[in-house]
Amino acid sequence: MSTLKGACIIGQSGGPTSVINASAYGVIDAALKDPNITRVFGAEHGIKGVLNDRLFDMGEEDPKELELLKYTPSSALGSCRYKIADPDKDDTDYKRILEIFKKYDVRYFFYNGGNDSMDTCNKISKYMQKVGYECRVMGVPKTIDNDLFGTDHCPGFASAAKYIATSCMEVYKDARVYDTGLVAVVEIMGRHAGWLTAASALATYKGAGPDLIYLPEVDFDMDKFLADVDRVYAANKNCMVAVSEGVHYADGSFVSEAKTSATDGFGHAQLGGLAAMLANVVKERTGAKVRGIELSLLQRCGAHLASKRDIEESYMSGAEAVKNAVAGMTDKMVGFECTRDGGVYTCKPKLLNLTDVANTEKKVPLEWINADHNGIEQGFIDYALPLIQGEPDLPKEDSLPRFARLKKVLAK
Amino acid sequence: MSTLKGACIIGQSGGPTSVINASAYGVIDAALKDPNITRVFGAEHGIKGVLNDRLFDMGEEDPKELELLKYTPSSALGSCRYKIADPDKDDTDYKRILEIFKKYDVRYFFYNGGNDSMDTCNKISKYMQKVGYECRVMGVPKTIDNDLFGTDHCPGFASAAKYIATSCMEVYKDARVYDTGLVAVVEIMGRHAGWLTAASALATYKGAGPDLIYLPEVDFDMDKFLADVDRVYAANKNCMVAVSEGVHYADGSFVSEAKTSATDGFGHAQLGGLAAMLANVVKERTGAKVRGIELSLLQRCGAHLASKRDIEESYMSGAEAVKNAVAGMTDKMVGFECTRDGGVYTCKPKLLNLTDVANTEKKVPLEWINADHNGIEQGFIDYALPLIQGEPDLPKEDSLPRFARLKKVLAK
Repeated sequence: MSTLKGACIIGQSGGPTSVINASAYGVIDAALKDPNITRVFGAEHGIKGVLNDRLFDMGEEDPKELELLKYTPSSALGSCRYKIADPDKDDTDYKRILEIFKKYDVRYFFYNGGNDSMDTCNKISKYMQKVGYECRVMGVPKTIDNDLFGTDHCPGFASAAKYIATSCMEVYKDARVYDTGLVAVVEIMGRHAGWLTAASALATYKGAGPDLIYLPEVDFDMDKFLADVDRVYAANKNCMVAVSEGVHYADGSFVSEAKTSATDGFGHAQLGGLAAMLANVVKERTGAKVRGIELSLLQRCGAHLASKRDIEESYMSGAEAVKNAVAGMTDKMVGFECTRDGGVYTCKPKLLNLTDVANTEKKVPLEWINADHNGIEQGFIDYALPLIQGEPDLPKEDSLPRFARLKKVLAK
Repeated sequence: MSTLKGACIIGQSGGPTSVINASAYGVIDAALKDPNITRVFGAEHGIKGVLNDRLFDMGEEDPKELELLKYTPSSALGSCRYKIADPDKDDTDYKRILEIFKKYDVRYFFYNGGNDSMDTCNKISKYMQKVGYECRVMGVPKTIDNDLFGTDHCPGFASAAKYIATSCMEVYKDARVYDTGLVAVVEIMGRHAGWLTAASALATYKGAGPDLIYLPEVDFDMDKFLADVDRVYAANKNCMVAVSEGVHYADGSFVSEAKTSATDGFGHAQLGGLAAMLANVVKERTGAKVRGIELSLLQRCGAHLASKRDIEESYMSGAEAVKNAVAGMTDKMVGFECTRDGGVYTCKPKLLNLTDVANTEKKVPLEWINADHNGIEQGFIDYALPLIQGEPDLPKEDSLPRFARLKKVLAK
């Protein structure tokens, strides 16, 4: 492989996670140390920062503050939900990106995001190849949704899963404190894939979690749901339900659909309010006391409950992207290959073709959903439990989080 | 003071907290060790357990499991919201309580709860005095609402405050990740007192918290609120709001009132849905992207973010109740007397008359609310910051909480 010298850009895109900054730090830290990489730029708000010529010079940052990115939730560089055009139809953005790459002699491009971001990354990679501009492009995955193709799991999933499992255990305790009974409905993120909702089963595995769990991988039936709740409530005088925001009827319409009509930049319906809606339906039907709880943004920014393993793997995926790019690889995403034989967990990086990853969603296998479609099988527990392990040594100040404070000096 | 030998009962009442079990453990641990206390009973679901003759023999529990109560949220013995009658009007319950006290030779009664529970505790104390049954009655406070009279603060407040401040810091980071702007409205518990909502100001103090904070101590004005949001949003393209569930208009009606008509056992309106409602009002008026987040039960059961100091003080209040009762005191609640001179925090127990505590609410002093009624002054920060200090060494299993597992053997 030929040596390639030049600057690099790291951009962050899509919904943030507790550990996306750990991945970015993996890129930044490895890139700053690599003699082939002349400058390290952080793009403000992902690809928009490239288009707008808003690049931060990461070499200007205090290394100690940069390291705190490992424990700082959300996207420190700023994120975007920007749908880049098909280059065959409109190459305006690509020409502008090429112009900026040339201006700063950018020869390495790292894009840190989920499905849609890998699509952006893939399109830029293919465009640069087409126009013959030598630039190595690597995707650095993140998504709490855990729905990226070809990798054992995605950085960010485990920390959100740990937040969800821990919170469900606590709510379980709280929601059965009275002898008057309660039906608690917890709404969890995940439009099309139920990985996060399934994570609530880790609480059940520990004896303090949802009695009923509904994933978007299978159709939702309101009558069946109400009968399930009735049965559990009659037996226990309490019932805890975990439900994915993306549960849908057999015709494909979201159960929450009537509640909101807003959509995000990619045309996805913005969901929410499902927990309150289902709780009300239960109340009307059964007269039980109900409580709808939406974990909302809390589940994706709960860095105080991050998995240490997730932080380490997130850093690793960023650093591996740099290492492989410098070694000559391009057009890839850094995935994970894991083993769990005999309860021993191993994880090593593997490179996936961006083309294969872009826009392909990985769902929870049906064999991990119970036959009744209201619970999770042990296979998922064995899969997920190793991922949430380890407590990071969180930096605190006055017993509150000490997040990274970046200077964000614009590159000249 | 005369020596009094006999059994004791500990009961828990009202909404649970992250650390109410630490207080109960303080009572149980001290009582089990005290030679004057012959047996230690835990009442199932507070005073209802006495009325129903459902008492657990705490001497049958594994001491190691009992100690885990320090880190186990919710009321381990079960709680209740039972409004005991005025004994002059209906003394049925009191006669039954006396009957049970005599049956088990109960000479010490400890009641662990908030305002309403101290009222129950007070009425039982006065009744026993009236009928001449020698029984020492002590209130052990808990309430995340922090609204008990005569004490510097209440066990449970600090851990909820720490949860709220930490979560607000994380949401702050998450809610400003895009360049498209967002108005995030966080709804926090507190019907009549704004202590918990004020705790969100600890996040602002750390540079990552709400821009606007609304407490129920002052009247809410929708036009003023919308103007406040407009101003902050215009300046920052982002706005984070913290609002108490109990904010009300000048006529006293709750802002959230139209949303629900349910009431709990004490006739309090059950509030909720305010965050979503205010977010929608902002959206309609400004067109901004909005997100309503209700911290719901999470804020009162988030033991994983408990303040170590709160756990220690909660335990202390329980143990002090036993110590003082055995020494001859009765008809009191264990409060705290604290100093913060020169940044050095001290806390010692002080005994308050149950009559003074029962049904008296302590609100946030107006001098800690800013002149514009949309923010919190430094005085509150100085008050609250010492309370949230310290990280407990949380027992975990597979990186998830390991809660106490009680056998709950019914007393014969």
